[in-house]
Amino acid sequence: MVKTRSSLEAAGLKQRTANISERVKKIVVSPIKEMRILAEKVPGAISFGQGMPYVDTSPEIKEKLVAALKTKDISKYSTSPGLPELRQKLAERVMKKRGLQGILPENILVTVGAMEGLGAAVMTLINPGDEVIVVTPGFSSHIEQILLAGGKPVFVPLIEEKGWALDVDAFKKAITKKTKAILLCNPSNPTGTVYSKEDLQEIEHLVVKHDIILILDEPYDFLLYDNAEFYSPASNPALKNNLIACFSFSKEFAMTGYRIGYVYADSGIINQMMKVHDAFCICAARISQEAALAALSISDEFTKDLVKKLDYNRRLVMKWLDKMPELFEYQVPKGAYYIFPRYKTSNPKLKSMNSFNFCLKLLYEAKVETVPGAAFGPAGENHIRMSFGAKPEELEEGMKRLKKWGDNLIQ
Amino acid sequence: MVKTRSSLEAAGLKQRTANISERVKKIVVSPIKEMRILAEKVPGAISFGQGMPYVDTSPEIKEKLVAALKTKDISKYSTSPGLPELRQKLAERVMKKRGLQGILPENILVTVGAMEGLGAAVMTLINPGDEVIVVTPGFSSHIEQILLAGGKPVFVPLIEEKGWALDVDAFKKAITKKTKAILLCNPSNPTGTVYSKEDLQEIEHLVVKHDIILILDEPYDFLLYDNAEFYSPASNPALKNNLIACFSFSKEFAMTGYRIGYVYADSGIINQMMKVHDAFCICAARISQEAALAALSISDEFTKDLVKKLDYNRRLVMKWLDKMPELFEYQVPKGAYYIFPRYKTSNPKLKSMNSFNFCLKLLYEAKVETVPGAAFGPAGENHIRMSFGAKPEELEEGMKRLKKWGDNLIQ
Repeated sequence: MVKTRSSLEAAGLKQRTANISERVKKIVVSPIKEMRILAEKVPGAISFGQGMPYVDTSPEIKEKLVAALKTKDISKYSTSPGLPELRQKLAERVMKKRGLQGILPENILVTVGAMEGLGAAVMTLINPGDEVIVVTPGFSSHIEQILLAGGKPVFVPLIEEKGWALDVDAFKKAITKKTKAILLCNPSNPTGTVYSKEDLQEIEHLVVKHDIILILDEPYDFLLYDNAEFYSPASNPALKNNLIACFSFSKEFAMTGYRIGYVYADSGIINQMMKVHDAFCICAARISQEAALAALSISDEFTKDLVKKLDYNRRLVMKWLDKMPELFEYQVPKGAYYIFPRYKTSNPKLKSMNSFNFCLKLLYEAKVETVPGAAFGPAGENHIRMSFGAKPEELEEGMKRLKKWGDNLIQ
Repeated sequence: MVKTRSSLEAAGLKQRTANISERVKKIVVSPIKEMRILAEKVPGAISFGQGMPYVDTSPEIKEKLVAALKTKDISKYSTSPGLPELRQKLAERVMKKRGLQGILPENILVTVGAMEGLGAAVMTLINPGDEVIVVTPGFSSHIEQILLAGGKPVFVPLIEEKGWALDVDAFKKAITKKTKAILLCNPSNPTGTVYSKEDLQEIEHLVVKHDIILILDEPYDFLLYDNAEFYSPASNPALKNNLIACFSFSKEFAMTGYRIGYVYADSGIINQMMKVHDAFCICAARISQEAALAALSISDEFTKDLVKKLDYNRRLVMKWLDKMPELFEYQVPKGAYYIFPRYKTSNPKLKSMNSFNFCLKLLYEAKVETVPGAAFGPAGENHIRMSFGAKPEELEEGMKRLKKWGDNLIQ
C-alpha cells in the first residue's frame, strides 16, 4: 500500500524504519507535497500541483498587518483556542454563512489552517480500529490523518459519470458498528464537485441515525462556477451535536501561507479538541490571527474577483483538455480549483501506467507538475489532479507542454 | 488521574464524553493554558503562569517583516519542511551552537514552535503501549503528547535537595524492553535546573546502549544564570542517530506568538516526522518563517539584554520568597525563567491542600496566576510553578499579593 501511495518512494526514496512507529511507517507525506518537493528540483517546472491561488493577499490585509506590527505587541501567545475578539467574529461569521443562530465563541477553535482542525478532529473522535468513511477520490491528507489516529479509512467511491456525485446507497452500506465519523470535503478536493443538497441531506440522516460525527472540510465554499448551488449540512441546526465543520482563510483570502483556519462545533467537542490543539501547536500564530481579523474587515470584492480569475483559469484548462480527447476525459468542476481528468487507458501506451508513474513522467519529461490520482484513494487511479490556481500564462504554457508531451506519447 | 490533572475540571468544568476517543478523554489541556483561561476571567490578575518574556520582539525583526510584507509575496505555503534558505541557516546555526559539522538542510524541519516538533517526534517514534521516560517534575505537555500517541509516560523523579538534579540510577532502573525514548527539557521547565554534563553523558550511554531515541527540548539553552554551564547531548556526534533535538525562537527572540521552532535529527527521522508535520500543519506560517530569518540576522545584544532582564526578575522573585519562609522553600533556578517552590505542608493550613486547590485559591483570593505543581508529574505535588517572565513591576505587585495572602492563610 505504501509503495503506491508515495511519489517520493516511487522516485526512489528509501525511508528509515529503525525506531519509527508503525503508524508513521504506514502513512506518507501527502503526494501533493511530495510532488512539490520533487518539482522544486526541476527548474522551470509549471505547477498544477499544490492548491494555491496565484494572487497575493489583499493589500488591505497587509496594510493592517503593518500597522499592527508598528502599534501593537503581537509577539505573544494568544490563549490556546484563539484571540477572544477573533472567536467572537468567527462565531458571527458562521451564523451569517450558514444561516444559524446562537453560536458562541465557545463553539469556535482557531486552528493552524483547516488542516490542523481536521487533524485534531480525527484525533479527538477516533480510537484505534474505528472506521471513518471517506469518499474516493477524496482529499489525500484525510487518509493520513485517519491512519495517524490508528483509524481505518473506509472508501466510498463517488459516481464519476454523474460528475463525481455522492453515492448515498454506498454510504448506507459502508456504515458498521465501528463507524465513528464521515469526513467530507465540499466542494470536493480533488474533483471540484459541488455535492447536491438532496444527497447531503441523506448523509445527515445517516449521521443522526447512527449518532456519528460528520466532519466537514469546507475551505472552498465560496468558490463556485456556472451558478452552482452550494449547501452545507452545517446549516442544519439538528446536526449541531454531530458536526465538526472546518474552515480556512487560505483560499478565500489567498492566505495559504498564514496557516489560519477555524473549527465550528458543539462546545463540548471544542473543549476536547483543544487538548489536541494545545499539545501540538499551543495556538495559531498570533500574527496570522491578526491577519484573519484584518481579512474579516475587507470588502467582498477581493473574493469576487478571485472567483472570476479562477473561473477564467478553469475555462482555460478545460479548453486545452478538449484538444486532447485521445489522452483525457473529464468531468466539469463546479467548485474549488481542481479538475480530475482520467487518462485513457484504452490507449495502449497508457494501458499499464499507474498514476504515480504517469505524474513522474509528466514532471520529468514535460516539466509539468500534477498529482497522482491514486493519492486520493483507490477510485483515483488512472486520473491526475490538476490545480488551476496558478497564473493564466503559466497554465497556458503548462497545457501546451502537456499537449505536446501527450501527442508524442500516444502517437 | 484526569481529575487531579485538570485545573478546569477542578474548577467545575464537565467534559463531553459522547463520541470522544479514549486517548483524548485521558488527556488534559495543559494546566498552564487552563490557568490562563481561568485567569482571563479574573480582572487584574497578575501572571506567573504561562512562560513568556514580557519584552516585545526586536524592532529589527518587525522592520524586516514590514519590508517583507511590502516587497515580497509571503502569502503562499512554503514546502512542508520549511523555506530552503531557512533550513540552510538553521543547519548552520545548529553546527555553531553545538560545535558540530556536516549538518545539512535535510537534518532540519521547521515546526510550529518546539511544541509541534515534540508532538511530531513522539507520534513518529511511539507505538501504543511503548514507554517514554520523562522526569518529574517535567514539562506538562510532554505527558499529554505521549498519551496522545498511546504511549506510557514513565516518571523518573528529579532529586529536589540537589537542586532538582537528574537521578541517573533511577533512569537505569526505569528502562525496560518497552522503552522507546527519553524526553528531556534542559534547562528544565518547570524547575530551572541546568543539568550537569556528567549526568547527561550517563544518559547518552543509556540511549546508545539500548538504541532508543533521546528527544531534547532545548528552548532555554541561552538562558543561564550565575555562570551556569550548559551542556547538550546534541553536541555529541556519536548520538546523531539516536537524537531528536527541538529548538524554538519563542523565548530567545521573544517570539512566542509567532509559533516557530525547528528540529534537528538524522534525515531519516526528519523524513518520517515530516509525514506527521504535513498531516497536521502542512508547514509553519510563512510569515513566521520570514520572522525567523530576520531573527537570525539581528545582533546578539537583544538576547544578552533579555537574559539580564530575566535574571533581574529571578532575583526579585527569590527575594520575596525569602520573606516567606513559613510558606515556601525553593531550589535556586540556574536557567530558564521558572522557579518551582514547595509550599510547606508542615504548616497545618496547607497540610491537606493539593496543588490544584492551592493555585485556584491563589488565583481567586489573591488574583495571582501560577501553575499547579502536580501538572508536572507526581513529584510536582505540593509545589507551584512560577514563571518570572512578566514585567518587574507586575512581579513585584504579584509577590506582594502572594505574601499578604500567605500571611493571612497561615496566621
